[in-house]
Amino acid sequence: MSKPAVVIDPHFRSMGEIFSTADRQRLTEVVDVVWGRDEPMPVELAREALADARAVVCSGWRYGPVPTNVRAILDVSGAFPADLDYRACFTQGTRVLSAAPAFGPQVAEMALALALAVSRQVVDGDSALRAGTEKWLHAGNTGTFQLFDQPVGLIGYGSIARNLRELLRPFGCPISVYDPWLADGYLRSQGVSPVALPELLSSSRVIFVLASPTMENGALLSREMLEQIDSNSVLILISRAHVVDFDALTELLMARRFRAGIDVFPAEPLPADHPIRSAPGTVLSAHRAGSIQEALWEIGRMVVDDLEAVALDLPPQRLQQAQPELINRLVRYR
Amino acid sequence: MSKPAVVIDPHFRSMGEIFSTADRQRLTEVVDVVWGRDEPMPVELAREALADARAVVCSGWRYGPVPTNVRAILDVSGAFPADLDYRACFTQGTRVLSAAPAFGPQVAEMALALALAVSRQVVDGDSALRAGTEKWLHAGNTGTFQLFDQPVGLIGYGSIARNLRELLRPFGCPISVYDPWLADGYLRSQGVSPVALPELLSSSRVIFVLASPTMENGALLSREMLEQIDSNSVLILISRAHVVDFDALTELLMARRFRAGIDVFPAEPLPADHPIRSAPGTVLSAHRAGSIQEALWEIGRMVVDDLEAVALDLPPQRLQQAQPELINRLVRYR
Amino acid sequence: MSKPAVVIDPHFRSMGEIFSTADRQRLTEVVDVVWGRDEPMPVELAREALADARAVVCSGWRYGPVPTNVRAILDVSGAFPADLDYRACFTQGTRVLSAAPAFGPQVAEMALALALAVSRQVVDGDSALRAGTEKWLHAGNTGTFQLFDQPVGLIGYGSIARNLRELLRPFGCPISVYDPWLADGYLRSQGVSPVALPELLSSSRVIFVLASPTMENGALLSREMLEQIDSNSVLILISRAHVVDFDALTELLMARRFRAGIDVFPAEPLPADHPIRSAPGTVLSAHRAGSIQEALWEIGRMVVDDLEAVALDLPPQRLQQAQPELINRLVRYR
Amino acid sequence: MSKPAVVIDPHFRSMGEIFSTADRQRLTEVVDVVWGRDEPMPVELAREALADARAVVCSGWRYGPVPTNVRAILDVSGAFPADLDYRACFTQGTRVLSAAPAFGPQVAEMALALALAVSRQVVDGDSALRAGTEKWLHAGNTGTFQLFDQPVGLIGYGSIARNLRELLRPFGCPISVYDPWLADGYLRSQGVSPVALPELLSSSRVIFVLASPTMENGALLSREMLEQIDSNSVLILISRAHVVDFDALTELLMARRFRAGIDVFPAEPLPADHPIRSAPGTVLSAHRAGSIQEALWEIGRMVVDDLEAVALDLPPQRLQQAQPELINRLVRYR
Repeated sequence: MSKPAVVIDPHFRSMGEIFSTADRQRLTEVVDVVWGRDEPMPVELAREALADARAVVCSGWRYGPVPTNVRAILDVSGAFPADLDYRACFTQGTRVLSAAPAFGPQVAEMALALALAVSRQVVDGDSALRAGTEKWLHAGNTGTFQLFDQPVGLIGYGSIARNLRELLRPFGCPISVYDPWLADGYLRSQGVSPVALPELLSSSRVIFVLASPTMENGALLSREMLEQIDSNSVLILISRAHVVDFDALTELLMARRFRAGIDVFPAEPLPADHPIRSAPGTVLSAHRAGSIQEALWEIGRMVVDDLEAVALDLPPQRLQQAQPELINRLVRYR
Repeated sequence: MSKPAVVIDPHFRSMGEIFSTADRQRLTEVVDVVWGRDEPMPVELAREALADARAVVCSGWRYGPVPTNVRAILDVSGAFPADLDYRACFTQGTRVLSAAPAFGPQVAEMALALALAVSRQVVDGDSALRAGTEKWLHAGNTGTFQLFDQPVGLIGYGSIARNLRELLRPFGCPISVYDPWLADGYLRSQGVSPVALPELLSSSRVIFVLASPTMENGALLSREMLEQIDSNSVLILISRAHVVDFDALTELLMARRFRAGIDVFPAEPLPADHPIRSAPGTVLSAHRAGSIQEALWEIGRMVVDDLEAVALDLPPQRLQQAQPELINRLVRYR
Repeated sequence: MSKPAVVIDPHFRSMGEIFSTADRQRLTEVVDVVWGRDEPMPVELAREALADARAVVCSGWRYGPVPTNVRAILDVSGAFPADLDYRACFTQGTRVLSAAPAFGPQVAEMALALALAVSRQVVDGDSALRAGTEKWLHAGNTGTFQLFDQPVGLIGYGSIARNLRELLRPFGCPISVYDPWLADGYLRSQGVSPVALPELLSSSRVIFVLASPTMENGALLSREMLEQIDSNSVLILISRAHVVDFDALTELLMARRFRAGIDVFPAEPLPADHPIRSAPGTVLSAHRAGSIQEALWEIGRMVVDDLEAVALDLPPQRLQQAQPELINRLVRYR
Repeated sequence: MSKPAVVIDPHFRSMGEIFSTADRQRLTEVVDVVWGRDEPMPVELAREALADARAVVCSGWRYGPVPTNVRAILDVSGAFPADLDYRACFTQGTRVLSAAPAFGPQVAEMALALALAVSRQVVDGDSALRAGTEKWLHAGNTGTFQLFDQPVGLIGYGSIARNLRELLRPFGCPISVYDPWLADGYLRSQGVSPVALPELLSSSRVIFVLASPTMENGALLSREMLEQIDSNSVLILISRAHVVDFDALTELLMARRFRAGIDVFPAEPLPADHPIRSAPGTVLSAHRAGSIQEALWEIGRMVVDDLEAVALDLPPQRLQQAQPELINRLVRYR
């Protein structure tokens, strides 16, 4: 069987960044690689190549109309392409895929790391020992709590949430979910409880914000909503600052209304004088949850797995597929 | 059936510290409580009471010979009593029990919290944002690694290790164990690999020190042993400083030979000028892993569960039982 | 928000057969039920209703062209509709859904039940005791084996296989899979080993046939393939007889070449004089794996869960969705 | 370190029956084997050897007093030795161990196999097809039910029950336990619900009898108790007939009061004319649950694992240890 041609144009990512040596080898066994270089493919050349390609691996879409012979577009940036005619893709059956699920494990791990760092007061405890102001044993554990059996709330139930749920399993936490893009019955079938947002905020000891930015969820966590959070609870903001009224969050944290772990910010880099930098009871991280080099190879593994499927004219199974009902409701960054 | 008399003399712990309201109620339903106060029971009074008691709940042993009617001694301090005639207990069938397992979940959770704080550079990342020196995204993740699939080594395979193994399960880490008090075949039956100490140190990405102090393991982690650890690896010292050459450890950490999380120290409080206070790549904690108030109620729950058994003349199942082969090889602190 | 109209025309199934009382109540809360009776809806009436319907719940398709306002077709028969213009559905974005996954748990359970009945010789053992020819203890266990740690092969990796994998988990069996509709990389990501069919047959102690009938897999298990099976191995034929050369299978079983459990037959009812009826070492079942009344309510639950999604203009998640690459390769029975 | 002498005298079992080739090799590496033959060791010779032995591997005890140098007695029959001075053993700290746990996995598997054979009507379904009286699809499933989510009751919570609990885990069944030798609090800590026997019988869909015979539980399941069982429920009698009024059970089954799976009988072999042989709705097995040859090697593996411990003067961990509170309450067969 001859191998199908696939355009591989991952720039801004590089080939070595996303493909391990083993997966690069697999790639060439599975498809006829067109381009496959770190530099961006010249657009004219790409358009020509598309005419014979079964699929395209890219970061965003800058090649104009999608020929019907292209059965799949695999975006390795971590999001769906901004400038793509999705309607045409859906009509002609071109699958549009995002590598977002490749980030699930590492981001979920960081979400747990931040939650434990706050609940067990790891950062404050370390600072105190360095400053010589530590308190020993129980005296140092005022405000510390265990995660075991605590009610957990997940805002957004996508690939990060599913990975996090596995990491939380040994802690025995009952899990509530708010995700307006999933039906209640489906959530129940996953073993989690669908709840309204205010109830989730007021009843969860640890709240994880894991939602993709959509046209509808800007500042969803308004001041009024944030005020529902119990003073003993912890908010972990992993994805995305878009869904939070960040000014309100900052004020509430400065006033010690509750505690938090924060990995994403409304502006990055964060202004040097932003008050959140000195928020008490808060663990800060400079958008590092999903940016581990070795984890990027998971993108390549998933891409090759799905190209195996595409090469055999089978449905891809590993990357996230754009859905007609949702794609225009997602915020797509250029 | 009349309830058996049980002396409850938990001082230095208090009744309310170890028994939740519900368990205190259960306690009175299961046994006839003798004393049951926060103040230490006068020794003479205690000796008298022992003559009719089925069991004793205490912190250490200060009551002289153990009458044969006493079928179980339940020590709530977290260790086995120092001044007890164990030989007599074994001969007459008095079970000696320690509440150490009650600490397993909280200590294992802290071990994971410290491991993730080091591997994901949570503390350094927070400090950098507070100092305004943070690096964003990948640039801030130099030296960060994920726990998934990393080889883990456990030094000591008691109740902390068993709890930690459950918390590590979703990370898929292959687990090696060094525990000279457990046969290799038994360890294999637990799904872990028994290995020699040097091999464990050189081949594990994260090494957890979880061993009880024994007559044989003082400074087991000598300078020579510590030098086996790879520069990309992380040592988590949870239990106990006794097993480490702490001066050597301090020097190696100051020299950035590897990274560490440390909860226990050779002297506590730690001298104000101890160099470990400024060790780089290290997360420090002031012996706070096993000192959460709410977790002490687990002691009470286990004690009442085992008193239920003792009251019915059944073997207790929840606390750790002193073993003739091992009890004199443990370091027992007074 | 007004509820969308949905045509509910489940005949040959009845309303009470697929909807529990609770789900029937949920159904009326989620959508505006059109028809919803046990009798088949008159076609003209149905076509009229379709013009305003958001979705249709049916058994097969007998309503002609699909209006574009119909966003989902939910077939409750257990298969995809035979007489449907799939190309039109894909082009206009009408999702076509099958209730097949509702049968996964009960069929997987029966697969395990048959496997254990054969491996532990449950049926022969019972017959012997009834005939007075039983052998006791070890003498009765000649040919018996435990499932623990045995290599298992799955032919077909759809919803039955996924459910079965969960049931097999505590047995610790390494699992190989042959499924030409799934890429190797995807199978590996599921924790199973993709293998070629001959290797699966020769190396598995228990082989489960779980494949849907396709244009390509008729008599896939030919005589030559069946002869790869080891004499100590067990074949469980659950879905479907289509994939087996049944005459060859019968001859091999009559000759005691291996053992089997069989739930599906090339003709049902099976001719009274079919030789398989007296096959030794074989457990026979009259297509009862997926026909438990109470389990049909799982269909209704999944249907209502997915109608919740459709009513909110969200992608359905629970039923199986027709895929353009595969739908014309499936055998569709009328 | 010189290896300790251990008398290995397994008769009625043979060496090859309990030790795999690998474990026999391990055995000689771990201890100095004395005797180690299939024939019974002459008693005088054995007594002489005992004077220098660290441990004895045997089937029952026929060697007179236990010298204090013997630190462990490992009985490979599956029960504790009948004719042993346990009081002396406990006083002098000789551990007495039974290989019963080696049977846990295979017996638990058979318990599940019988439960599924009854609940899914596997045996009746096979018989019907052989007789030409089968009913197809739903018509053949009258009385069939799925195990998923059904309330399960375990009578006795020893090693079989613990193994069975793992096998039942994917079925999601809530589990109740009646075991008068375990405290309620301990059972709750295991994630099961302690209940009184009548409640267990009346509320469980599947009831597993897994209790060791004791001085107290003869005919525990009296006629009155058996009558608590719901007509839709299933009783699985695996261990032991001792705990059941077998005449009452037989009558109730003949009257189709409920259904059952039975592996153990009051007399074995069972009289040829015993009415249970024709009981309807019942699956019969001639005490075959714990008698698979290959599973006997698990005995040898556990024995060598525990001899590793004994050789190092450590507590054995794998076999079941005799407890002073219980040993005289067990029925010990000679």
